[in-house]
Amino acid sequence: MMVSTARAVLCLCVWLSACPVQGSHVSARMNRTIQNLLLHYKIPPKDRFNGKPVFSREPLAGKVETKKLFMVGVLETYEKLIGQMLTHLPTPNPPTTGIHVRLGAATAAATAPGAGGEVGKELNFILKKVQELRKHRYQEQSELLQGLEALGKIQMDNFVVQSKALWELPWLYEEASSISNDAKMQRRRRRRQTRKLKTPPSA
Amino acid sequence: MMVSTARAVLCLCVWLSACPVQGSHVSARMNRTIQNLLLHYKIPPKDRFNGKPVFSREPLAGKVETKKLFMVGVLETYEKLIGQMLTHLPTPNPPTTGIHVRLGAATAAATAPGAGGEVGKELNFILKKVQELRKHRYQEQSELLQGLEALGKIQMDNFVVQSKALWELPWLYEEASSISNDAKMQRRRRRRQTRKLKTPPSA
Repeated sequence: MMVSTARAVLCLCVWLSACPVQGSHVSARMNRTIQNLLLHYKIPPKDRFNGKPVFSREPLAGKVETKKLFMVGVLETYEKLIGQMLTHLPTPNPPTTGIHVRLGAATAAATAPGAGGEVGKELNFILKKVQELRKHRYQEQSELLQGLEALGKIQMDNFVVQSKALWELPWLYEEASSISNDAKMQRRRRRRQTRKLKTPPSA
Repeated sequence: MMVSTARAVLCLCVWLSACPVQGSHVSARMNRTIQNLLLHYKIPPKDRFNGKPVFSREPLAGKVETKKLFMVGVLETYEKLIGQMLTHLPTPNPPTTGIHVRLGAATAAATAPGAGGEVGKELNFILKKVQELRKHRYQEQSELLQGLEALGKIQMDNFVVQSKALWELPWLYEEASSISNDAKMQRRRRRRQTRKLKTPPSA
């Protein structure tokens, strides 16, 4: 009796950990892991609630496509950030890449001996969840972000690049003007379709 | 008679300069200015046609919103690039901002004495056209790009930032999952609407 009850409780715990909270995409295990990590990455409430979130919510008020593109930027930033956090853990085999500079004085908890192992596992779990979400649901946006990042690497002070860019300008300028016209027409067409659906056909 | 003919020719020239080429968004004046600049920023054909354009065309094969977002990145890159080109001109009053490093050896034309004045005016004209297009037609996308650039400036090695980002993760993860679901449902709804329009209503 005792064994079967214990097994039932264990099963329930496993199920609760694996399944998302009712109506939520953040699983109970993910939620718990983040809470654990926050015990480790502890900061004073005055720092946490200073009215300056790390991620702005403004771009999330726009159109779905705009939101999705900003969101993929947020997810990628989390991946880099957690990678950075993993780099600074005192694990037995610390990763060899990443910048080894830490700003601020509140580093006591992160460098406490023996903290690396468990915290490292938890960070890796969160990292995997973020990566999965980005790869499975935001593939198109990820590719676009890569394209935008490539623009930032263009050698602007190179004479050959400057000349080639001038040469490419007429086509790109034409395309940029056309696309914005296409988008306007697409919106108009969609509005017309919706109006058509709403208006009952006359007999 | 001579005077009126000359005046007519002059008017025609001004009109041709001001109006876009038939069916094109690139005006005759803009086209001519780029051609003039290419006489100045002259590179060997083997460099120009080496199969490596400065701007990738790949992201322009996607959806309209994706295209628009990449395009605003292209326009912003042109603004920076032309700003850089202006910085390197030997004008009487060179701009004081910008990086004063030039890669490659093919800088002879750009640093030729006296070249700055006319080339500078032409570059400024092109810069203005690009800025106008971006500001008038790509405002929403410009704001999003600023939001993405701000993500790149997050201090990832700061303990307080790391802790706050962890704290913000459940909400953002939930939002990221919901948005991608919303987008899927929106596409489905649109497909249903289109099908409805194509299928004649049964009597």
